[in-house]
Amino acid sequence: MPRTGTDGQHTVVGPGGAGPVGYSLPLSPTGRSAMLTPPPWHFSGEVVMVDYRVDPEAARRFLPPGLEPGADPGAAAAVFATWQWCSQDRAELTDPGHCQFGEFLILLSCEFEGRPMARCPYAWVDQAVPMMRGWVQGMPKQLGVVHQSRPVTVGRAGSRLAPGGRFDGALSVRGRRVVEASVTVERSTDRPPALHDVPLAHTLVFPEWTSSGGGPRPRLVASQVSDVEFSRIWTGSADLKIFQDLEEDFGTLAPLEIGEGHVFSYGETLHGGRLLSD
Amino acid sequence: MPRTGTDGQHTVVGPGGAGPVGYSLPLSPTGRSAMLTPPPWHFSGEVVMVDYRVDPEAARRFLPPGLEPGADPGAAAAVFATWQWCSQDRAELTDPGHCQFGEFLILLSCEFEGRPMARCPYAWVDQAVPMMRGWVQGMPKQLGVVHQSRPVTVGRAGSRLAPGGRFDGALSVRGRRVVEASVTVERSTDRPPALHDVPLAHTLVFPEWTSSGGGPRPRLVASQVSDVEFSRIWTGSADLKIFQDLEEDFGTLAPLEIGEGHVFSYGETLHGGRLLSD
Amino acid sequence: MPRTGTDGQHTVVGPGGAGPVGYSLPLSPTGRSAMLTPPPWHFSGEVVMVDYRVDPEAARRFLPPGLEPGADPGAAAAVFATWQWCSQDRAELTDPGHCQFGEFLILLSCEFEGRPMARCPYAWVDQAVPMMRGWVQGMPKQLGVVHQSRPVTVGRAGSRLAPGGRFDGALSVRGRRVVEASVTVERSTDRPPALHDVPLAHTLVFPEWTSSGGGPRPRLVASQVSDVEFSRIWTGSADLKIFQDLEEDFGTLAPLEIGEGHVFSYGETLHGGRLLSD
Amino acid sequence: MPRTGTDGQHTVVGPGGAGPVGYSLPLSPTGRSAMLTPPPWHFSGEVVMVDYRVDPEAARRFLPPGLEPGADPGAAAAVFATWQWCSQDRAELTDPGHCQFGEFLILLSCEFEGRPMARCPYAWVDQAVPMMRGWVQGMPKQLGVVHQSRPVTVGRAGSRLAPGGRFDGALSVRGRRVVEASVTVERSTDRPPALHDVPLAHTLVFPEWTSSGGGPRPRLVASQVSDVEFSRIWTGSADLKIFQDLEEDFGTLAPLEIGEGHVFSYGETLHGGRLLSD
Repeated sequence: MPRTGTDGQHTVVGPGGAGPVGYSLPLSPTGRSAMLTPPPWHFSGEVVMVDYRVDPEAARRFLPPGLEPGADPGAAAAVFATWQWCSQDRAELTDPGHCQFGEFLILLSCEFEGRPMARCPYAWVDQAVPMMRGWVQGMPKQLGVVHQSRPVTVGRAGSRLAPGGRFDGALSVRGRRVVEASVTVERSTDRPPALHDVPLAHTLVFPEWTSSGGGPRPRLVASQVSDVEFSRIWTGSADLKIFQDLEEDFGTLAPLEIGEGHVFSYGETLHGGRLLSD
Repeated sequence: MPRTGTDGQHTVVGPGGAGPVGYSLPLSPTGRSAMLTPPPWHFSGEVVMVDYRVDPEAARRFLPPGLEPGADPGAAAAVFATWQWCSQDRAELTDPGHCQFGEFLILLSCEFEGRPMARCPYAWVDQAVPMMRGWVQGMPKQLGVVHQSRPVTVGRAGSRLAPGGRFDGALSVRGRRVVEASVTVERSTDRPPALHDVPLAHTLVFPEWTSSGGGPRPRLVASQVSDVEFSRIWTGSADLKIFQDLEEDFGTLAPLEIGEGHVFSYGETLHGGRLLSD
Repeated sequence: MPRTGTDGQHTVVGPGGAGPVGYSLPLSPTGRSAMLTPPPWHFSGEVVMVDYRVDPEAARRFLPPGLEPGADPGAAAAVFATWQWCSQDRAELTDPGHCQFGEFLILLSCEFEGRPMARCPYAWVDQAVPMMRGWVQGMPKQLGVVHQSRPVTVGRAGSRLAPGGRFDGALSVRGRRVVEASVTVERSTDRPPALHDVPLAHTLVFPEWTSSGGGPRPRLVASQVSDVEFSRIWTGSADLKIFQDLEEDFGTLAPLEIGEGHVFSYGETLHGGRLLSD
Repeated sequence: MPRTGTDGQHTVVGPGGAGPVGYSLPLSPTGRSAMLTPPPWHFSGEVVMVDYRVDPEAARRFLPPGLEPGADPGAAAAVFATWQWCSQDRAELTDPGHCQFGEFLILLSCEFEGRPMARCPYAWVDQAVPMMRGWVQGMPKQLGVVHQSRPVTVGRAGSRLAPGGRFDGALSVRGRRVVEASVTVERSTDRPPALHDVPLAHTLVFPEWTSSGGGPRPRLVASQVSDVEFSRIWTGSADLKIFQDLEEDFGTLAPLEIGEGHVFSYGETLHGGRLLSD
């Protein structure tokens, strides 16, 4: 009988059914050395988000077969988030340097078989575990430096979450500024921003190392989340700069028009992926 | 007439009354290159704090002449804080990577001429500007890696600020864990923790570079703050570990007894220092 | 005909043969956004390495089916290296923040079908690109903080590569010290250290995201390298500390006995992986 | 009799001659907690340096009274260096994460009473100890991210120190690229680059915290070094970009003309400062 790790459903089994195990590398005798824990993963975050529009044709070139531009081609969003995460047993929460990370991502509106979804062409986080976990999901997370304003409730060094409050986000990659966003909130609503309220459609793919392999075919998947929770949504005017010197393809998603900005708290539990095509 | 920088009161003037200027190094033609802005500086922070007791004799050895152990010798606190700061014009707030920092410090109870004060023998921050600004005040800030739990309002990845909520802090210095603290809050009050509600007494001193100098004498100063603002104080049980392998003197301030922990928001404006002795 | 990226052999093709492409995520219209370039990758490094012995039974528990303990069970090495790397066109070399990284890894002696090889149960690097590239190879690289002495040729702040020269390495993971090594060199030879002169046998495996999947079976591979180049090998006495508080499985590989240490420069080109089993 | 720390000459004495001591903050019972050790400090470094010319009038505005533009007004240099340092007892060398740092600085040619010197208007390092030690000397070091090519002796991932070898440096400050330099070496000589072979003239000044103070007057000092050692100097063509978006005064020192570049190793011992004026 194959040896298993700490979680029956998610355990990697060594070739031939013995040897070190784990949900991910590094494999080890008990499976406890794995860098990643298996899902579900819980997330609680603070979000600063700017709606904007890109060239619809540029957006289309980032959509894999199966995804269509949908009803509002060119709709996009730039999303900064400060996260805490934990596994099912919530053990990581006692180690704040481990359970926290910052994230920036771009979302493009799209449809799968007529259903509204979002495609994430680029994402950066500032910790290795969420970066690698992104690739498990097909989410193209890289490592960057992310900063985002924190609302304050006392003192003068920051804005309250109240009309006139201003909240900024900034992304640097390899020592260069890549994105700056700013939202000045004016009113609060219960309506989540459109692109933050649809499923994400990712592409599962990983480089194949052996020439004899050829590798598994890319697969389109939708993330399966539960326990979605929004705070009140603070909305207002926004600004967004996407600097052009990172790389040519990234530059094609620069804003043609900037819409509203949103500041809110968001929670979800991420369970796994559902194949959209095979 | 001497050239001055952007702030008449605080400008450094070059020798002989000309040349580059600035509140601090680097001096430059307009003074705008200075690493530090002049006070006042505003601060808004989230605090996780643990009361504890050290060997009173160990604490006494950290008090300079003029400061006495006071009514409760051996009373100490370990304080984690996540700050935003800004200068008088609040310009830094639009750059979240610049206006935020994490801090850990130790406070020892003491008295100056019968008045309760606190002495900070050790402090670490994770940004260069607040480190250098600490030395301007006589506060012995060094660079470390500081992490602290963030209360959440949605989702499962963190604790609410409510009975049973747990909040952790961790400090690493040069790749080694130095402090871990944990507070499980049980009730809220309006009473600020004792050691966070008294003036800090620092020693102004800076190494003298020229042998002919000898340098200015160390001077005991109290920080001058205004606009102090506390949120409700969440209080409960606490844990605190101070690891012994950083350095011998630091190790003498390890906890003999651990008291309550506190979680709260705090704001203040820091204006300058008042000489306690000369 | 499917669209391809910049490299015919290594391009990922979108599902159905269209859409964004790339050797790795992120996929983009031209493939230029991919975080990873395809092999071959060139490496030039400075190595500080300590031979040591672990409990042979502990080592055996890290070997997957197909690998045997071999002629010298319990032989191990702790390897610090400061690398530069580049792709075939050497473009990364003009960006020193991109082409440099530090690494620490543990090697265990083993055999595949009677042929001496090395198994790497744990590795840490300080950059995201080599971490992710490790997982492409089946090498369990995580992110850590790695420091290593640099030999000097002038001045007093360091050792020459000469008898009596001392060279240290240190690894910290998540704010805790995990490994410290020290080598004092005594003589130079042309004989490469045994565990640095055999192929590495890794396990290709990646977490499966969809429940319908099950995922590809783990596969045992050997790295294919060419253009191996060693400098003179400086050898001498060594010290090695593996701290026990990282994680239980890691702790089973602590040294029972410490052998010689080696300091040398090493170059290789990495081309891909060859399946050892399927 | 006053208590003293570990070094009689450099010890800070508490006000009134008792209490905690140290060469610098933090003061502690034995003086061992001090962030800085007293000089002499030894340095061994690898340098990538580009000669260039700035607007002579812009350079003049950075010179304090007492320093004159000298024989070659507008001569400047951009210097990247990878350092190891240690105190007199060389204890720091066993901790490679502590004794290493990267540095970028700008040098302007000048004269004091007819003697050629260099003025450093801007400098960045990537560690806190050398930053603070810079301010002790009057050298305006701030914290930045510095990267620099490493010459290689084996493998293809880097250049040899030989004709045609290319060596790059890059500085980022607060997430923005500020300087990029590149040197392609062509020949080696024994003649040190002019601006790296003259004394540095700094201004000792530190912000005054108490309104009653006024603070010590700025003082012009020359660094006192011994045991200067150069390797062969590799010289060739160079490129240099100084980006304009850091800050206005810094931008005035952008290159009007780019000269030769140099790659070499350099060692020195720094003892203290000699007053040039008082």
